[in-house]
Amino acid sequence: MKKCSQCQNNLNYNCETCILRLSGKTLFYNVPSSLLQEIEHVDEHISINTKIYEENESNTYLYSITKGIVKLSITDASYKTRATSLLTAGMSFGLEVINKSSYLQNATSITPVKVCKIKLAREQINESKSLLENTLKKWQENITNQNQIIEKFSMGDTHTRIIRLFHYLKENSPLEEKNNFYLPRLEDISSIVNVSKENCSRALSKIKKMKEIILVDKKSKIYKT
Amino acid sequence: MKKCSQCQNNLNYNCETCILRLSGKTLFYNVPSSLLQEIEHVDEHISINTKIYEENESNTYLYSITKGIVKLSITDASYKTRATSLLTAGMSFGLEVINKSSYLQNATSITPVKVCKIKLAREQINESKSLLENTLKKWQENITNQNQIIEKFSMGDTHTRIIRLFHYLKENSPLEEKNNFYLPRLEDISSIVNVSKENCSRALSKIKKMKEIILVDKKSKIYKT
Repeated sequence: MKKCSQCQNNLNYNCETCILRLSGKTLFYNVPSSLLQEIEHVDEHISINTKIYEENESNTYLYSITKGIVKLSITDASYKTRATSLLTAGMSFGLEVINKSSYLQNATSITPVKVCKIKLAREQINESKSLLENTLKKWQENITNQNQIIEKFSMGDTHTRIIRLFHYLKENSPLEEKNNFYLPRLEDISSIVNVSKENCSRALSKIKKMKEIILVDKKSKIYKT
Repeated sequence: MKKCSQCQNNLNYNCETCILRLSGKTLFYNVPSSLLQEIEHVDEHISINTKIYEENESNTYLYSITKGIVKLSITDASYKTRATSLLTAGMSFGLEVINKSSYLQNATSITPVKVCKIKLAREQINESKSLLENTLKKWQENITNQNQIIEKFSMGDTHTRIIRLFHYLKENSPLEEKNNFYLPRLEDISSIVNVSKENCSRALSKIKKMKEIILVDKKSKIYKT
């Protein structure tokens, strides 16, 4: 049994049986096993609220999400953190390492996350038609994701934005129980809906008071709608 | 002499002598002439404030900017136009057609623009290492551009945002005269700085009154700082 390189827990997924991959959702869809054996990739568990990498950091890994939600963000000229994307299972981030570039954005887990950590050389992309096709599609998916955060979460009043975010989190939750989701930290909510922490805090208090979300697990900050 | 397919004016640029291409800034950098001859591409002039394509429109062309500034935008759930990027000479847009996707965003010229209109099949990308390299870099450039619009233009008060935009327009102006730039339409300014048209209009009146920008050419709406 493979073990997570971080937490040493057993990992029971591999490329050959990965449902995400087989259903066409991941970077490695249709990539021949022979090539996958040449590409360094390792599964990893990441705890909630963990910085995976920082803007401008140099590294060689890109990531494919197996479970959970990752927030990408940048720091604007007034040193405010601004979320640029929310990514879910099947999506990739850190693709810029293929261009030998340092990371363009900060990546942070906003739920517990499982990822496949991949070292992919540009030359290897040429070796498989599917891998080239998937890589180009993943870049496009990242643009679409950046647009969605504008379309979905940064319009309407604060209450509307936060409720819309909670519905998204519930729909994409890694938790088995339907309607349950991890409540993000106030700073994450603020950076996603693009409203000050103070205003988000006020809106959140009202949402809790009106029982629009209900606490399920205090320790893990799991709520349900 | 080649003529523009739109306006029939003479075009005096071609790939072999294109300075943008030779300096490494365009999609076709280092791509062998033999392959370029197989790839359909044609130069075109686009007037200021022209819709080049619309979100969800299906087409087969992508674009490389030779001169001028193009705004990409989306329509949010409240039917408001939200600018997602400003693109300048050397940059590409509409790359999603390589993935056989319809356009992800609206593309509008906010100055007179010269473009190279390109029909590129994914299979052709495989034929040149440089073309693959450039295509992946252009996707990344588009992500960086989307981040810049957040970093640069959607922070601070309305006056600060608009002045920052005018400096950007001046620096990237296709006009020969230094400090001169085309004043965008109010709706474009509003969608870029993400402030209502009413507030932009008030701020703009003050900027003109305080002579922070001065009219140079009334007909073409050219101003200088």
